[in-house]
Parts: sequence; structure tokens; C-alpha cells
Amino acid sequence: MHLEAGRPIAFINGKFAKKLNIIEGSRIEISHKGTKLILSVNIIKKLLSEKEISLSEEAISNFKIKKGEKIEISVALEPRSTRFILKKVNNLELSKKEIHVIIEDIVNNALNEAEIAYFVTGVYHNGMSVKEIIYLTEAMAHTGQILKWKEKKIADKHSIGGIPGNRTTPLVVAICAAAGITIPKTSSRAITTAAATADVMEAVTNISLSVYDLQKVVRKTNACLAWGGSLGLAPADDKLIRVEKMLNLDPEPQLIASILSKKIATGSKFILLDVPYGKGAKVSFAQAKKLKQHFLKISNHFKLNLKVVLTPGFQPIGNAVGPVLEMIDVYKILKRKHGRPLDLEKKSILLASHLLEMTKKAKKGKGKEMAEKILDSGRALKKFEEIISAQGKKKKTLKLAKFKHNILGKHSGKVKSTDNKLINHLARILGCPTDKAAGLYLYKHVNDKIKKGEKLLTLYSESKKKLNAGIKFYRQTRPIILS
Amino acid sequence: MHLEAGRPIAFINGKFAKKLNIIEGSRIEISHKGTKLILSVNIIKKLLSEKEISLSEEAISNFKIKKGEKIEISVALEPRSTRFILKKVNNLELSKKEIHVIIEDIVNNALNEAEIAYFVTGVYHNGMSVKEIIYLTEAMAHTGQILKWKEKKIADKHSIGGIPGNRTTPLVVAICAAAGITIPKTSSRAITTAAATADVMEAVTNISLSVYDLQKVVRKTNACLAWGGSLGLAPADDKLIRVEKMLNLDPEPQLIASILSKKIATGSKFILLDVPYGKGAKVSFAQAKKLKQHFLKISNHFKLNLKVVLTPGFQPIGNAVGPVLEMIDVYKILKRKHGRPLDLEKKSILLASHLLEMTKKAKKGKGKEMAEKILDSGRALKKFEEIISAQGKKKKTLKLAKFKHNILGKHSGKVKSTDNKLINHLARILGCPTDKAAGLYLYKHVNDKIKKGEKLLTLYSESKKKLNAGIKFYRQTRPIILS
Repeated sequence: MHLEAGRPIAFINGKFAKKLNIIEGSRIEISHKGTKLILSVNIIKKLLSEKEISLSEEAISNFKIKKGEKIEISVALEPRSTRFILKKVNNLELSKKEIHVIIEDIVNNALNEAEIAYFVTGVYHNGMSVKEIIYLTEAMAHTGQILKWKEKKIADKHSIGGIPGNRTTPLVVAICAAAGITIPKTSSRAITTAAATADVMEAVTNISLSVYDLQKVVRKTNACLAWGGSLGLAPADDKLIRVEKMLNLDPEPQLIASILSKKIATGSKFILLDVPYGKGAKVSFAQAKKLKQHFLKISNHFKLNLKVVLTPGFQPIGNAVGPVLEMIDVYKILKRKHGRPLDLEKKSILLASHLLEMTKKAKKGKGKEMAEKILDSGRALKKFEEIISAQGKKKKTLKLAKFKHNILGKHSGKVKSTDNKLINHLARILGCPTDKAAGLYLYKHVNDKIKKGEKLLTLYSESKKKLNAGIKFYRQTRPIILS
Repeated sequence: MHLEAGRPIAFINGKFAKKLNIIEGSRIEISHKGTKLILSVNIIKKLLSEKEISLSEEAISNFKIKKGEKIEISVALEPRSTRFILKKVNNLELSKKEIHVIIEDIVNNALNEAEIAYFVTGVYHNGMSVKEIIYLTEAMAHTGQILKWKEKKIADKHSIGGIPGNRTTPLVVAICAAAGITIPKTSSRAITTAAATADVMEAVTNISLSVYDLQKVVRKTNACLAWGGSLGLAPADDKLIRVEKMLNLDPEPQLIASILSKKIATGSKFILLDVPYGKGAKVSFAQAKKLKQHFLKISNHFKLNLKVVLTPGFQPIGNAVGPVLEMIDVYKILKRKHGRPLDLEKKSILLASHLLEMTKKAKKGKGKEMAEKILDSGRALKKFEEIISAQGKKKKTLKLAKFKHNILGKHSGKVKSTDNKLINHLARILGCPTDKAAGLYLYKHVNDKIKKGEKLLTLYSESKKKLNAGIKFYRQTRPIILS
């Protein structure tokens, strides 16, 4: 049927359903050549004969099955993990085994989204002990692909996110890889923000690599800047995130396990974690300090060399918000152009310097100098071009969106505040991240002076309608306030 | 496509999805002749043209739409209620308006099951104030059909359930209706137990009545014994129950609102509530006493005349477990046959006597006597036959299942205990409630004497395979223990 449902589902004939004694929404287990999968059932009265089953694309991709091939079908047992989830909901500590069963059931599609929501909420309300977080991290890492490397010093850089712009990853990866560090970076796509690193990289290169291709790119260039979604690393995480995002819940134990399990799966040993804090960021300074301690505790257990950097996150970093706009600014920095966003450059150098020192590429206190040299010499630009060529560089040049609108200073003064959430929302109204060239460009940061009639920001959109919706939203919500 | 998905869903073409900028799982709003509905989207690459949409049966039944008719489609806004659900998850009190919006969104299908699970769990963890429970009850009642009656004294009987057998409802309704009480009883089907009143009634009559037919039956006979599911009474409840059952959560505020909202919707003013307590029941004696207080508080607000009876629930009531078997025993009582289950008769008389006295049909202290007389005189049997005839009596005679197996006393002694949950589970393995004639018959209750080789129970099943699975389960779990 060539049907995408966002999750593996099956369609069977009504008579067949009656024989199996199941109703719509029941779970069946299908198996084919040793692969098993649990699916929820839709019942269809026409189109299918009694002995036919139709699977959604997500199910087919698990099986590599062809039309007409035979598969075995049985009614799935109650998922074993629901009673462990109930334990967590009732504030009882889970054992290693129990956590593994829950994560396995999530990966095998044995749990539906409501059952996953119960798990998320159990953790949200009752928290997890250090032991439980360790088991969760392990379970999430080991129910998916684990990348193996010949090199021992594999590095990674991660941000807990939430800040518009803030496109440090391509710069940090280019600098570190140019210095000889192996840094197989995988990133996610934006869920609630305007753009994430994967969306931005997609403006210039292919980001959907197989594990095989990824390893080839890394062997060739020391690095990659790929999308994590197609690799099957810690696959429970995507399903958990999908459910968490419905209410924007992000319980700390799952945040920690989500990040560290992916790092374990990519084989990283040296990890730099950026935790932006402050008004408009995901965490306050006090929360950031606590989170740092928890991250260090768990990463110690896994013998990861983790460094956590707390950075101010009360306003956007860089000027550009939106995939193409951000990529243009990344190039401005790599090419040492006039008018490049210096706040973004400074933060990227800071993050890179830590990784250079952690991996002993630079002596203590000399990382910053080395990172600057690599940028100034053009070696970072060269490395970046190498990486995107190896992944499959796109031929099209970067092009801004068709329609734009300038917003000017209403009076002379200073920028008092810029609201991260409203800026992200505005960029999404303009078309981000789907419309790659949509977004906005900020000319002023907090405390910058502005004159009456001077450009404050420019909105970009591929459609007049979305542009007007953006202008309206800006006027109603005032994401930037002048004093 | 004639597709049943258990909930309203839509299928659209991939190109159309791209135009709307939506992915699989996104929610769209469709409207047609003033009716609106929110649906989650599946994307289909073949079968549909770009301007076609296909709806599941559940969606079509909302619209009464025909093939080829035009409908309007737009991307649904984020459901308004998710932030109110988040409030409850974070232990903040909800306003009347906020609770109404949540329930409306549940009824309109604007919330998915994971979001409903977050609401359930928020209430489970943080409870609800008396005010909140009142708002919830109101919202659940008034988002559905409300039955209107000319008579003022409308009565109802309800049990919180969980006890195998315990088929008091047909008997109480027949006795009360024979005494002239108007008692429009709607019941549910079994979810986790072997059979509920709707399943049992379905063995002898049509239970899927429209509101119009139900009122006709009640005008004619004073009563009905119908399934609640097809009437659209408090429709949020079914969706909440579907999600609660995944983890067998039953938060008290929702239990209270679920029961009282349905009573308000059926227009009942005199309500008798049976709360079985004890080991193997849903609540302990202490919990039952608390629950009683809470029920009285909320029902006072709605000016309902509610009486709560706490009854022992540590073992099955009656001998039969399973739709046909239970109906046969109900008839044994109505027909005053030898060997009828006296515990079930006694409990039914007790419950009926309360309703007779509450509605002033009997003087205080005289209800029991009146109920016994109505049974002995055959008036209850006559009334029962009237009701099932008016609903649409089935022509087939009651028939036991094809295969049976006796389980005998292993040694002489007494029955020490009978486990309700295992008995329910055993009956379900044997085919209940789908196979109406499946189930089991208990010859002995707790403290009854038994001789070695005497019949303890008989298992009934429509298939040899299920019978053997039942025998195996019985041997492994020992639901009945002899001393």
C-alpha cells in the first residue's frame, strides 16, 4: 500500500481478525526469516483477501520483505514491561533487568505511545537513582548499533540545545578534525527549535549516511557531520523523544541517558558537553550546576572523559536562525570574512579549545591559541570542505528565501532582551526547518545600540503568506525589546 | 477503504501532505456541513490521488459522509489542552474551564493516547480536589448525550466491579422494574474480567440500542438492560478507560467522575453503588470506606440520592463465570429453581431492597420482604422477559460450550480460598467474553466442605486447544486452594 504511519502498523482482513480473536489496536507479532516485529493492527474490509497482510513502510523497512512472500503471524503476548512501568509509576526502584526489558520493548515496538508516556511520566514524577540511570543508559546504548573504531581517542561535542542560532558544531568539528582528532559527529533534526545541526548541514551535504559510509567518511577525513536518525544508534531514544515532546517533558534521567547512550554507541571517549543556562534556556544556572554533577557521576561509571561547560544562553548565539542562513554564517567564519558573527566564533573556539586540551592535542592553556590558528590558516575551512565532499556535497549554491521583510528600530536605544522561544517560534512560522532558506537574521544582540530606522532584523520566507504570518506574530509578541 | 483503526484516522497522498507541510502522525481538522473532527494522518503513496482523503470507519461514522463528497481540510492547531495537562502533571489545580477543555479535546479526538496517558497519570500522581472532581464529572457528562425523562424518580444500580460472577444487575433491575421503579440501566462490556453485564445480556437479547429505542423500551417496561457503548453517554470515559487499562491504572477521581457522569447522563437520581472490598477485590475495606465518603461528597453536589453499600468481595459471587453460564444461573433464580446460587440471590435481594426503600416503593425495613415477594411470585421473571423482548430477544436457546473438563477434589477438606483474578484470567483463557458459552462453573465456595473426587469446578470452552490451555493454567496457578 506504500503507507507511512510514523510507526510500524499492519492491516488485515476483518474475517482474519475474527479468526485471530483480535480487534483494531490489538498487537500481533509477525516473523519472517528469523526477524520478529510487533505491530498494532488496523482492520480493513476490502482490498485485502483473508490471507493477506499489508504493512506500513516503517514495518517493511524492518524486514526487507517483498510482495507475495509468506510471513508468520501470531497474537502478541502482553508486553512484559508494562508491570515494570507500573512499578516506576508507583515509585519503586527498577532493577537492571527490568529497565532492559522496558527499553527492549520500546525498541521492538511492543509498547504503544501511551505506555511509553506512562514510563516517561513515572520517571518525571519519581526520578531515577544513579544506578537506574546507569542501567537506562546501558540499555539504550546496547539495544542499537555500536560503532567500533581502530583509534582510541574518539571525541564528541554536544549541546543540550534550545538556543536559536548557536551553530557551533560544524566549526568545532572542522577545527578539531583539522587538528587530527577523530570526531564522528552525529546530530539530530530540530523538533521544537528553528533548526538543529542536521538541518543546517543538509543545506550543503548529504546527511543520511549508512554506518558503513559514515565510517568511510571518518577514516578519510577524521570526522563527519551526519544525521543520527538513519544509523540505528540508541533507537529507543527517538521513540522516547517523540512521546516526551507531546508535553515538552524532558525528565533529567532520560536527558542524561539519551545523550550518554548515543555517545557510547558512537564509541566516543572524550566528550565536551555545552549546557546553556539562564532565562530562555532549558535550565537555570543552579539547575545547570546540578545537571553537570549528575552527568559527571554517570559518565565516570562508563569511564568517559567528560567535560561540561556552562555557557550563557539567555539570547540567540550568532545572527542567523534557519538552516541556510546559519550555514552562510558558518562559512563567513570559516572564510574569515568581515561581518562574521564574532559571538558564535568565540564560543566555537572556546568549545574546540577544551577538546584540543582534553585529547592532549594542545597543552593545557594553549587550546584557544591552537583553535584560532587553525581557523586563521584556512585549515578548518579546508577540513570542512573535505568532510562535506566525502559525505556527498550538494551542487546547488546557498540561496536565500524568495520573500523578505526588514524590521527596523522604532526609536534609538539599546536592545534590552531577546526571547529565545519566541525567536524559534517566529522562524518556524516563516517555514523553518522544512523550508531550508526560511528564517531570520538578527543584526543586534542584547546591549547593542540601535538607531531609529536602523535594521533590527530581517525575516525570510518562501511564501508571502508565511512571511505575513511571521510579521503579524512579531508584532503581537515582540520577541525583541528595546530600552 | 472500509478500515477500522479503533479511532478516527485519515489517509492522504504524500504530495498533498508535503503541500500541507505535515508528516505522518500530524493532526488535521476536517469539516463537512458544520461538523468538525480532528484526525491523525497516515500518508499513502498509492491508491489515493492528490485531492483525495480516505477516512477510517470511526471517522466516517462521525460525519455520515458519502464517497465523492467534498470536505475541507486544514492543519489542526496544537490542542489547547496539552498545557493544562502539563499543569496537572506538575501538581497544579485545574480550573473548571481547563478541565472542560481537556475533556472536550478528548471527545473531539484532538488528543492522542499518549497525551491522554499524561492526563491519567497526572491525576493518578497528584489527585484532584473535590472541586476538580465535580468539574470533571460535569465536563464528562455534558460533552455527550443527556437522557431526559418525564418521570422524576429515575433509579440506577452500579458496581465498581472486579468480582467474577456477581451478576446482580439483571436481577436487581427485574425486581425494581416489577415494583414500578424506572431504571434505565446501561452497562459496559468486560475489559479485564471474564464477563460484564453487557456481555451476559447479549447472550439473550439485543443490547446495542439507539437512544430512541432505549427510551421506547423504558417507556414500555420501566427498564432496560442495554450496552452503554452505543449511546454516546459521557463519551470521554471510554477513551480514558482504554488508556487506563493499558497499565490497569484507575485513579479514584476518574473512577468517581466516570460513574457519576454516566448516571447524570442517564438522568438517574436514585443510585445504589455496590463497592466490593477485600483481598482480590479492587479496594480494601479501609479504601472502600474512604471511597464511599468521596462518592457521597461529589454526589451531594449534584443533588443525587446516592447510597453506597460495601460488600465482601474476596471470592466469586454465584457459581457461574462466563456470559451464557451466568445467564443460566440468573434464570435459575428468576424461575426459583432448585440448586440456584443462593449467595447471588441474597446479594441481589439486598441491593434491590435498598433501591425499593430509597424510592419509597417499600417502607423502611420492608424492602427485603418486598423484593423476595416479587421474586417468589414470578413477577421479576415476567418483567425480565418483557425487557429482553422489548430490546429484541434472541431466538437461540442458551447452549453450553462444546468441550468441558471437570476438576475434582484432590482430598477431602474445605475450600480455603478462591482467587478472583486467577478465576477471571482462567475464564478468559477458556474464551471469555468473546466465546459467550465459554467459562467455568464453581460448585464450592470458601468454607464449603468437599470430598475427595467430588466436583470442584467444570471448565467450558469452544475449542479443545483453549480447554487444554485452561487446564494447564489451572494446574500451574491453583486459583482454588483446599485446606
